[in-house]
Amino acid sequence: MNERTPPTSRRSRPAKPPLSREVIVAAALDLMARDGFSGLSLRRVAAELDTGAASLYVYVANLGHLHRLMLDAALGEMQLPEDGSAPWREAAMSLLLAYLQALHGRRGLARLAMTALAAGPGAMRIWERLLHLLRGAGMDGRRAAWGVDLLLLQATAIAAEQAGRDAGGLRPESIREEVEALPEERYPLVRAHADDLFSGGGLQRAAWALEVILDGLAAAPGVRPGLGETL
Amino acid sequence: MNERTPPTSRRSRPAKPPLSREVIVAAALDLMARDGFSGLSLRRVAAELDTGAASLYVYVANLGHLHRLMLDAALGEMQLPEDGSAPWREAAMSLLLAYLQALHGRRGLARLAMTALAAGPGAMRIWERLLHLLRGAGMDGRRAAWGVDLLLLQATAIAAEQAGRDAGGLRPESIREEVEALPEERYPLVRAHADDLFSGGGLQRAAWALEVILDGLAAAPGVRPGLGETL
Repeated sequence: MNERTPPTSRRSRPAKPPLSREVIVAAALDLMARDGFSGLSLRRVAAELDTGAASLYVYVANLGHLHRLMLDAALGEMQLPEDGSAPWREAAMSLLLAYLQALHGRRGLARLAMTALAAGPGAMRIWERLLHLLRGAGMDGRRAAWGVDLLLLQATAIAAEQAGRDAGGLRPESIREEVEALPEERYPLVRAHADDLFSGGGLQRAAWALEVILDGLAAAPGVRPGLGETL
Repeated sequence: MNERTPPTSRRSRPAKPPLSREVIVAAALDLMARDGFSGLSLRRVAAELDTGAASLYVYVANLGHLHRLMLDAALGEMQLPEDGSAPWREAAMSLLLAYLQALHGRRGLARLAMTALAAGPGAMRIWERLLHLLRGAGMDGRRAAWGVDLLLLQATAIAAEQAGRDAGGLRPESIREEVEALPEERYPLVRAHADDLFSGGGLQRAAWALEVILDGLAAAPGVRPGLGETL
């Protein structure tokens, strides 16, 4: 404490919450919601908690570890859709769209999910549910496991790409102008398909992409197409 | 110039290359190869060029614009595979694997590609080739255009995820330990499929994921399966 700081009774200051992993993760999630993903550092989280970065190392190993804990905590708050009687494909789609919505719903979360790999109870709830749906459709263990990874990575990438464009203030029209400026003799198909390339809203294209992947996963022998039947 | 700096004849200093968009982009790519994606800023690129950030604004609008120019320049250097006579699926796979390899081949490029959207001649060469292959397979314009986007986003996300794990020093074994610590009664499938979840090398899983997406794209009516025929 600086010598010129007037002495303050401990009783007149608000009580600090005792540090714990949960308190640190909650403060980091609040900080990210306020300042975005790129503003996050252990030093700033420590400042939020009115302590020094060194105190945090008792609870988290480094910034990468904190990222993983944050992502798992945020995914743990996601509401999984009720889908007891839906066919596997519809149930998988509604789960993936809920995941996408969760990533969009909190500033910085999509970029966090693209950076960190969460393997705690919050993230693994989603894996458990998707594994259940893909195994129930008749996929073997490896196809189901790798399929979950593929579907979630695609959904994460869609959300992160969208978040990056929003943060960069990039307008679709300016990208289109750039494409229209390419010489037609060298880029005939890009020029001819400009309307298709820029068509569709974010959610429509996301749902289409996830459906194509589900089609691909369902294309293996033994996998049920998923129309009509229930789990 | 500071008054105490000794005067230096212009003749005794090495000649600065005149600034141009190309010079700035090349310096930024060198800087990223050395310090990684997160070390990139207009200020640091300007310092590399022995000038101030303000001088760069004549050529690039902001850091996001520089990112897009860098990505397009780096993709422009990528060698497209020769595949004149290969069936469309094989040609698409070899193009996608070459793209993946290009992203892995330069430090920071995978994260740059996940952040920036390039629409210049370097990136659009890849789009043009993929559009040619998917249209040649019988896909309609929208399916081909959205399909290119889906395939390239998946390849980019795979490369960026891998780069993020490498940078964070996250070992697969420590993730596996975390999964093994989850209670079996609440996560029975995740626990039972741990071997499948962690099986396969990065390239094997990447190729599998891209094949699944090609299967899904080929599942539409009118699309040729791509075995045996040539373009």
